[in-house]
Amino acid sequence: MGSLAVNSKKHKVCIVGSGNWGTTIAKVVAENTHQHGDIFEPEVQMWVFEEEYQIPKDSKHASTELASKPQKLTELINTLHENVKYLPDIPLPKNIIANPDLASAVHDATILVFNLPHQFIGRICDQLKGKIVPYARGISCIKGLEVSDKGCQLFSDSIGAKLGIYCGALSGANIATEVAQEKFSETTVAYEPPSMDSQHPTPSGTPGGSPHGSHLDLTQLDGQIQRPARGSQKQRLMALPAEYPPLSHTNMTKLFHRPYFHVHLINDVAGVSLGGALKNIVALAAGFVDGLGWGDNAKAAVMRVGIVEEVKFGKAFFGDSVRTATFTEESCGVADLITSCSGGRNFRCAKMAVKEGKGIGEIEARELNGQKLQGTSTAYEVHEFLRKEGKEGEFPLFTAVWRILEGEKKPEDIPDMINVEARKAGERG
Amino acid sequence: MGSLAVNSKKHKVCIVGSGNWGTTIAKVVAENTHQHGDIFEPEVQMWVFEEEYQIPKDSKHASTELASKPQKLTELINTLHENVKYLPDIPLPKNIIANPDLASAVHDATILVFNLPHQFIGRICDQLKGKIVPYARGISCIKGLEVSDKGCQLFSDSIGAKLGIYCGALSGANIATEVAQEKFSETTVAYEPPSMDSQHPTPSGTPGGSPHGSHLDLTQLDGQIQRPARGSQKQRLMALPAEYPPLSHTNMTKLFHRPYFHVHLINDVAGVSLGGALKNIVALAAGFVDGLGWGDNAKAAVMRVGIVEEVKFGKAFFGDSVRTATFTEESCGVADLITSCSGGRNFRCAKMAVKEGKGIGEIEARELNGQKLQGTSTAYEVHEFLRKEGKEGEFPLFTAVWRILEGEKKPEDIPDMINVEARKAGERG
Repeated sequence: MGSLAVNSKKHKVCIVGSGNWGTTIAKVVAENTHQHGDIFEPEVQMWVFEEEYQIPKDSKHASTELASKPQKLTELINTLHENVKYLPDIPLPKNIIANPDLASAVHDATILVFNLPHQFIGRICDQLKGKIVPYARGISCIKGLEVSDKGCQLFSDSIGAKLGIYCGALSGANIATEVAQEKFSETTVAYEPPSMDSQHPTPSGTPGGSPHGSHLDLTQLDGQIQRPARGSQKQRLMALPAEYPPLSHTNMTKLFHRPYFHVHLINDVAGVSLGGALKNIVALAAGFVDGLGWGDNAKAAVMRVGIVEEVKFGKAFFGDSVRTATFTEESCGVADLITSCSGGRNFRCAKMAVKEGKGIGEIEARELNGQKLQGTSTAYEVHEFLRKEGKEGEFPLFTAVWRILEGEKKPEDIPDMINVEARKAGERG
Repeated sequence: MGSLAVNSKKHKVCIVGSGNWGTTIAKVVAENTHQHGDIFEPEVQMWVFEEEYQIPKDSKHASTELASKPQKLTELINTLHENVKYLPDIPLPKNIIANPDLASAVHDATILVFNLPHQFIGRICDQLKGKIVPYARGISCIKGLEVSDKGCQLFSDSIGAKLGIYCGALSGANIATEVAQEKFSETTVAYEPPSMDSQHPTPSGTPGGSPHGSHLDLTQLDGQIQRPARGSQKQRLMALPAEYPPLSHTNMTKLFHRPYFHVHLINDVAGVSLGGALKNIVALAAGFVDGLGWGDNAKAAVMRVGIVEEVKFGKAFFGDSVRTATFTEESCGVADLITSCSGGRNFRCAKMAVKEGKGIGEIEARELNGQKLQGTSTAYEVHEFLRKEGKEGEFPLFTAVWRILEGEKKPEDIPDMINVEARKAGERG
């Protein structure tokens, strides 16, 4: 297919963000751009929020000249080929170039991978306007939801809308350190190639397509309109010039797939983004029942109900493009939920709160060193949204978590609150 | 619906089996027959394989006359209302009657709940022939598969075929002790009311139906034929007499649902039975990668691949009645898999084998006190079946587990063996 054609240009990739997960994804991508030099420029730019960093005394770099005084983080990364502050002890490919200048980092990049804390997204997108090529394509690695007066919005959608580009999403059961150490992981990349890019459209159900690909017929989509999401504006997209290799599922797989990091490409961007956000609510619920000492049956039950509510939420509010299998069969769904309910911080803090009889805010303050639990904010945002939509009753587990956080209910009340069958049997008489 | 009609007869329930899980289910059922006396005879017969039992010195019953010498187990259960041998310290409802005589226990029972070790099923069914009412209905709580020259058979199907009755299945994330202690759990009951019983057929998609019910139109089924399964014979069923309340999903829910034991009723008997069998193979794989110290991402990835292969196995070999959601959204599927991969014996032994560098047979002998791992026998049976069908390559995880057990491959090879996307991308060139 595409790779047999001769393309005069290659894709240039920029990673926007350089924390623990951002640097890990840069490593994965840079290994692949090096390997697939027919499709990608080997060099990967990584935008770094510049800061001074003093190499600590117990670092293996402590004896170097660089450790004599604080250094710019970009210089450390580019000299040592290691993000000594955010991903220490992981050697990085030399084709990663840390760049403190955002405009320079994204210059001519056709693929922008967004991987930074969600609170910085808005400001960064403002700075990117006019600096990126108009036919750039994005992948958001940011988990979470933006809830505002306009409704419930995905970061992939808001990035796409702000920059006037198409933006997909990457999410999965991906504890960054494990991926960085090349311990086996899977992830899900959602990318529905915009139809105007489809010199070689990805046929569904064939080897070039996703095994779980959407049944959408791309030829029936309005060629100029991005898939509309609640709250986002329909917008005109500029086609990727024909000189570039197509950003098909095959080529996207080549950008992210490693022997230790298996990628599934699907079309369901909303589902992938939602899975990564909603699982944190479920992890709180799992932590609550585990904190009660109720055992493995109860925890598995809460997780199962959580998966079902995730599917329902996606279908209800993000339309027909959302597929059940994204939540039930992909890494971004069930697998991410499983890791989050094993040892994730939302699970752990909720469990501690119940065991110690304390409020979760107190545990959060004690355990997280100033960081905030995503689960609690997502639970509040989702509840506010459900309340406005008048749908609280249809999401009994999400609602139960909010009521427990509010102090209206206790963790012990969860079985009653989610007891759907008994209510049904009651209605049947 | 049904419960508004006046029925002159009530269902009599017999639990065939009285081990840890059998006694637990007897407790659940007896609580419900007592509560729903309009549908069920309160008394629940529990067939007990009679044995002599000496109450141990540390038992709370040690000071009673019964502790002076070994007693018949049935007498102990009926006097103390506790299965002191197999479910100690759990008070049982007084309406459970332990009965050592199989024919007497099942006499006039319209509902037979099979809950005993699978190796006894054949012999017990032989003894039951001619002793049960011809319109009895069964529920099998037995996890596992029977693989023979005839193919891959479910216990629900073989019980149904041997006794000439319709037999459904109950399975879920159900560690027996936790259910017995009334810690919150869920389960799945698969029961597709035979059409000749349908004085009040369960409409699909309405409150009387299962939320995940099969899309089979019961009116299109041959009224005299049980859903045929691979290897089972089509057979004539005798209709449940109209004097009995219908065994609808609503009434089956009333038989098994408790505030601490939530039941979902569905139609997919094969899917429920398969989930409980195949998860043990997946638990071995999860134990292998966890034993390597690969972390939570890897374990979740293997579990996810396992769910996908369970679905595929069901659809390939048990026909259109098998539904994806049974594996991905029900307690018998994803939730049971989660508990089995948390602390189940297959997971634990596989993990120990890898950590200690020993064969799993050695660990099994050391840890299980003579008992056998279901996962290894199921892995061999499933592999033998897949080999005959020429489908090993379509189930890379199941095949990987078998190859590791055989010593052909190592746990470290699992990522390569299941690396479907890379193979696909390779084929695409």
